[in-house]
Amino acid sequence: METIGIGLIGYGFMGKAHSNAYRQVSAFFPDTPALRMASIAGRNREAVTEAARTFGWEQAYTDYHALLADPTIDVIDISTPGHMHYHQVMESFAAGKHVFCEKPLANSLEEASRMVRAWRASGKIGMINFNYRKVPAVVLAKQIIESGRIGEIRSFRGHYLQDWLRDEHAPMSWRLQKEFAGTGALGDIGAHITDLAHMLVGPITSVTGMLRTAVSQRPIARDSAAMGDVTVDDWTGFLATFENGATGVFEASRIATGRRNHNAFEINGSKGSIAFDLENMNKLEVYFDDDAPDVRGFRTVLVTESVHPYVSRWWPAGHIVGWEHTHVHQVHDLLVGIAEGTNPSPTFADGYRCQAVLDAVERSAISGRWETPMGLPS
Amino acid sequence: METIGIGLIGYGFMGKAHSNAYRQVSAFFPDTPALRMASIAGRNREAVTEAARTFGWEQAYTDYHALLADPTIDVIDISTPGHMHYHQVMESFAAGKHVFCEKPLANSLEEASRMVRAWRASGKIGMINFNYRKVPAVVLAKQIIESGRIGEIRSFRGHYLQDWLRDEHAPMSWRLQKEFAGTGALGDIGAHITDLAHMLVGPITSVTGMLRTAVSQRPIARDSAAMGDVTVDDWTGFLATFENGATGVFEASRIATGRRNHNAFEINGSKGSIAFDLENMNKLEVYFDDDAPDVRGFRTVLVTESVHPYVSRWWPAGHIVGWEHTHVHQVHDLLVGIAEGTNPSPTFADGYRCQAVLDAVERSAISGRWETPMGLPS
Amino acid sequence: METIGIGLIGYGFMGKAHSNAYRQVSAFFPDTPALRMASIAGRNREAVTEAARTFGWEQAYTDYHALLADPTIDVIDISTPGHMHYHQVMESFAAGKHVFCEKPLANSLEEASRMVRAWRASGKIGMINFNYRKVPAVVLAKQIIESGRIGEIRSFRGHYLQDWLRDEHAPMSWRLQKEFAGTGALGDIGAHITDLAHMLVGPITSVTGMLRTAVSQRPIARDSAAMGDVTVDDWTGFLATFENGATGVFEASRIATGRRNHNAFEINGSKGSIAFDLENMNKLEVYFDDDAPDVRGFRTVLVTESVHPYVSRWWPAGHIVGWEHTHVHQVHDLLVGIAEGTNPSPTFADGYRCQAVLDAVERSAISGRWETPMGLPS
Amino acid sequence: METIGIGLIGYGFMGKAHSNAYRQVSAFFPDTPALRMASIAGRNREAVTEAARTFGWEQAYTDYHALLADPTIDVIDISTPGHMHYHQVMESFAAGKHVFCEKPLANSLEEASRMVRAWRASGKIGMINFNYRKVPAVVLAKQIIESGRIGEIRSFRGHYLQDWLRDEHAPMSWRLQKEFAGTGALGDIGAHITDLAHMLVGPITSVTGMLRTAVSQRPIARDSAAMGDVTVDDWTGFLATFENGATGVFEASRIATGRRNHNAFEINGSKGSIAFDLENMNKLEVYFDDDAPDVRGFRTVLVTESVHPYVSRWWPAGHIVGWEHTHVHQVHDLLVGIAEGTNPSPTFADGYRCQAVLDAVERSAISGRWETPMGLPS
Repeated sequence: METIGIGLIGYGFMGKAHSNAYRQVSAFFPDTPALRMASIAGRNREAVTEAARTFGWEQAYTDYHALLADPTIDVIDISTPGHMHYHQVMESFAAGKHVFCEKPLANSLEEASRMVRAWRASGKIGMINFNYRKVPAVVLAKQIIESGRIGEIRSFRGHYLQDWLRDEHAPMSWRLQKEFAGTGALGDIGAHITDLAHMLVGPITSVTGMLRTAVSQRPIARDSAAMGDVTVDDWTGFLATFENGATGVFEASRIATGRRNHNAFEINGSKGSIAFDLENMNKLEVYFDDDAPDVRGFRTVLVTESVHPYVSRWWPAGHIVGWEHTHVHQVHDLLVGIAEGTNPSPTFADGYRCQAVLDAVERSAISGRWETPMGLPS
Repeated sequence: METIGIGLIGYGFMGKAHSNAYRQVSAFFPDTPALRMASIAGRNREAVTEAARTFGWEQAYTDYHALLADPTIDVIDISTPGHMHYHQVMESFAAGKHVFCEKPLANSLEEASRMVRAWRASGKIGMINFNYRKVPAVVLAKQIIESGRIGEIRSFRGHYLQDWLRDEHAPMSWRLQKEFAGTGALGDIGAHITDLAHMLVGPITSVTGMLRTAVSQRPIARDSAAMGDVTVDDWTGFLATFENGATGVFEASRIATGRRNHNAFEINGSKGSIAFDLENMNKLEVYFDDDAPDVRGFRTVLVTESVHPYVSRWWPAGHIVGWEHTHVHQVHDLLVGIAEGTNPSPTFADGYRCQAVLDAVERSAISGRWETPMGLPS
Repeated sequence: METIGIGLIGYGFMGKAHSNAYRQVSAFFPDTPALRMASIAGRNREAVTEAARTFGWEQAYTDYHALLADPTIDVIDISTPGHMHYHQVMESFAAGKHVFCEKPLANSLEEASRMVRAWRASGKIGMINFNYRKVPAVVLAKQIIESGRIGEIRSFRGHYLQDWLRDEHAPMSWRLQKEFAGTGALGDIGAHITDLAHMLVGPITSVTGMLRTAVSQRPIARDSAAMGDVTVDDWTGFLATFENGATGVFEASRIATGRRNHNAFEINGSKGSIAFDLENMNKLEVYFDDDAPDVRGFRTVLVTESVHPYVSRWWPAGHIVGWEHTHVHQVHDLLVGIAEGTNPSPTFADGYRCQAVLDAVERSAISGRWETPMGLPS
Repeated sequence: METIGIGLIGYGFMGKAHSNAYRQVSAFFPDTPALRMASIAGRNREAVTEAARTFGWEQAYTDYHALLADPTIDVIDISTPGHMHYHQVMESFAAGKHVFCEKPLANSLEEASRMVRAWRASGKIGMINFNYRKVPAVVLAKQIIESGRIGEIRSFRGHYLQDWLRDEHAPMSWRLQKEFAGTGALGDIGAHITDLAHMLVGPITSVTGMLRTAVSQRPIARDSAAMGDVTVDDWTGFLATFENGATGVFEASRIATGRRNHNAFEINGSKGSIAFDLENMNKLEVYFDDDAPDVRGFRTVLVTESVHPYVSRWWPAGHIVGWEHTHVHQVHDLLVGIAEGTNPSPTFADGYRCQAVLDAVERSAISGRWETPMGLPS
């Protein structure tokens, strides 16, 4: 393969983040394979044209099938709402494309299962955009765990707290309707902490949880008197067991007043601990029990050193990166994977495993019992 | 009543903290009723004599019944391990004494139930030592909630993390044996966060949880080759619903490597939030959603101002107090309550309610289902 | 003017940061005037060619005079070491170009003085790259001060701490030689805190200070046995008075072991205070004395809201930006200024004022007395 | 000597802190020599009687000479305003007593000089109450420095920030009048950071500084319309050099709005750094440059472990102590010193050395030059 042609579906928040990532990756990661920002697709002609112009896509289409039909496009990046993923992914694999899909993989596990089968059958790369796997501090956490420096993992505590739904006057959106979003806080941000737990601790084997909707009716539009029903959760909590014996406590909230993007976890091992918070994403807290007894304490590591993952390609030590950089790292890994023919992490299987946990939480919220996530389709 | 005579059972960690509290309270709280540190009881003659001498108890006994028999003693302070509480409390009320009992109230809900009945029948004061209710920052949190400044409470997140059992070589003790301790992390420190949730949010109406023992065998003594079975949990997590509709996520751990006494909670309301951590116990984090939009953020309040609860009696603003001061506040409230004939918070009913939640968590850990805490005995 | 043609001299650390800024600015700031990344110049042909290719400069030259001679280039961006600024700036104005110059303006106040005169005579834009003026949290600080919400400013405390010279085995470089760098910590990072003080508090009217070189000899190259003399400071401290009556305490260090890029200040006003640290550059600490007495405390504001300066153009609330974004904001302001014909802040006059303070510190370090910064040339 | 008889002069803020310390020390430090709280003296009969009753002093006097005349009193504790120290100390030594004196030693260096001579001539213990030397975290800092773990000390940065004079309506007091207080922020709180620098880094050899009075007129009493002149500083800053080649930057402020008792320092060594803040006095930040490169960072040490200084005598790990405990540690060391016949640190010589630095700062504030602290009297 020479130049990798990219086709992006979606120009919203995530579409913008991905567009920026493709624009930036080669300038900072010289080992990135050659890429071409070929086409962007979106339903509003004006908006998609503007997005193409802004970020440098060669073509703009209102029908994404044009991307599938283009033989110079190698990978389809699906940055659309979750209820569109299934069809777009299936069509993309059918068209012989690699697929880079926003999370969640799908809005139901049944769909996710078919998508995994299609991915396997295709022989193509299938990557899912759990971008927080690409935060340098998170990769460092993974390296520390794998080195054995904090011993065996015994407990994981993850909470992803936001507050944009704290206000009961905030209006309805597709994200608050079950038919489009599947679930609310669970699928959107609970998915991230679930995936991080999978990455850092290993497979979750059972869960018990609950879903809540603190504000169940909202204006159908800003300042409207007409009200609509919120049909997804704005809060979820669940307990989990891991295959390796560790335990987990999870919470995802969009009503945690004062917390804008508090995606935080702590991992306690037999010999040390690690803590992270996305609002301080350039830092990692690390504790080692074998430090000298008088000077033991959590270390605040500024993860901007040349020895740290991804970071040496950006700026000298002490010069922090931002949220958007996680997407640059993600597409870097995607493009390298395509060039090398190896499916980079997180794969569609990772996407399925996450979805299976969310599905088990949903089932548990109804049954009131512990539920087991479904295994990968055979 | 003129001078309140105190009889203390126990000279260990908690006995020392209580002894210090009785010694200190009058010097700093001038409204404290007159008190007499009459007698201390404990089974080891040498140790109890030493404790009496150190803290100024007039008499030392190896049999606590001497305290019950002493008509000059008005209140029995029970600072013994949990499995002794039941008999000592019942005998104390029978002897016509007020009772100040360390938590947990008992090791079983059945016993707690009988203790509550005995307390009611006695017409005496029955107080339980959930001392973290008396942290100035916690009382401030309560005041802020009651003022309505953070709106209606929607979620509570509490974790009490310690690490003194992280090391598998740490030896057995009575606290690790079910017959003496009832439960482990759940009853000892989980009790504190449960009680704080009751104080700050209101009654818990259902729970689902799990108990874990990460290290299930330990040396029977330091450096011993012989191993004993740990029969209580060293980790617990549970989800909860509150009567007012709020949700709760709880974790108590003695294996959270690097966390020495991290008793922390966060409360999210519709108009603001509050966060607390015992390791920074002179501070409270508070967020108000109606602050000006450009300068909204969690405020770090140093709770040492003259307007803050309890604090004005100690030192000028900016001069922090320590852990032991919570016990001074507690016995202050106890003594004032006795003098005024009103039962101060937390009462035996509070002790029962906490125990009922822990009991429900234990049942849930077996049933795998949501369980409802038992109501107060009729 | 239609499209603004840019010519950049320098492809090192700062050249890279500026190149990235020009690449990014239009995609995120739609009000940016049209720009053309015309030419980049640098002495090493291979390196400058590579830089042009990486960031998308149309032409690469080894002689910067080619940029001056190009009539399609409107602004010369000078990202070279300080000892080159004087000639390059003078030639650029002589060639009728706008100038955007890295700090410091020059290595001597005499040169800076001539540069200011040339700038005035040219009628062109002259901007200096004190990029920390463009941190959203810093601009917010300025807005808060100007609103009067913290009252009159009484004291400023700034320290810029790094540690890359802590190790005596770190080798020599041009930055450690007086003939190329002028001064060390003083001119490189002390300049930043001085400029921030000017921006936030106002003109400095007198200083007393000292310069130190903790490690005065270093290997001439990594692992070399030959040693060279370090002829600039690696530490400086100075006291200052401001025109408005406030006082200042400043420190700049490259030997503050453990501090990578700790550019921090605190401003105390009669009614409130503000604190900032570049290592947490998306946050600002703010205190208001008129908050209710029981909940007064420093607020930690996450400066990522749509109401905050610059930020709304990037990502939704809670998604942080990084160090490089300050340069994007800087070039945005530069380009808008050029299009509108108004000289954006910080101007060459700001560059001179900063230089005059550093010059006074240098004089004070010799005289041992308070010294007055020279005024702007007439 | 058998029982050490204590006589205390003063019942205000410091008198209360000392009284509490004598009451508490034996209960927690079993190696404390036997002591007797013999007498307290103060000018207001009612207040001193109340203080005696509250804290358990056997006798109360309105004339402190009664204490000097009492042969059962071994040590005079002088907790009075600074302008009284000179006569009280001289008389105490003349009466053959040990002396424990609040800081500052005196209001002038001339007086301090005579006091040091009297102390030497007496052969008695002379201790000064720089209580922050007895914070466990500060003693730990000292131990770390002495162990060589942070290498040679290169720079010290200390600021003691309070804000009780931020409000121009706060009324006059003796602390704001030169004849009673000597200096303001400099002598009261600047003295503490100066002494800590002496303890941790070593002798200061030269200083240059300034004194400021931001609010120079105040109501003579609360809500009074009559105004009085403030004749001492409410802000001071100074630079210093140390005998060992290190540099220092100091600031003391009573107008740092929002800072209640922010006594903070940072020490940068060639191999590590240490940072402390009194508002988090149970914590110490420590950085070691020889930590593994990927996990280097400031460690937050909770200084409550049994291996930490003083702490094992209080409570188990994780249970914090408060401000008052520093005074308990101080009187413990005093009493042990008296029993052993060795003068505990900080001695009158330490008190003089601190005073000499403050004197040099005062001279420098007038001369505008670097000044050298006077040496100890011969």
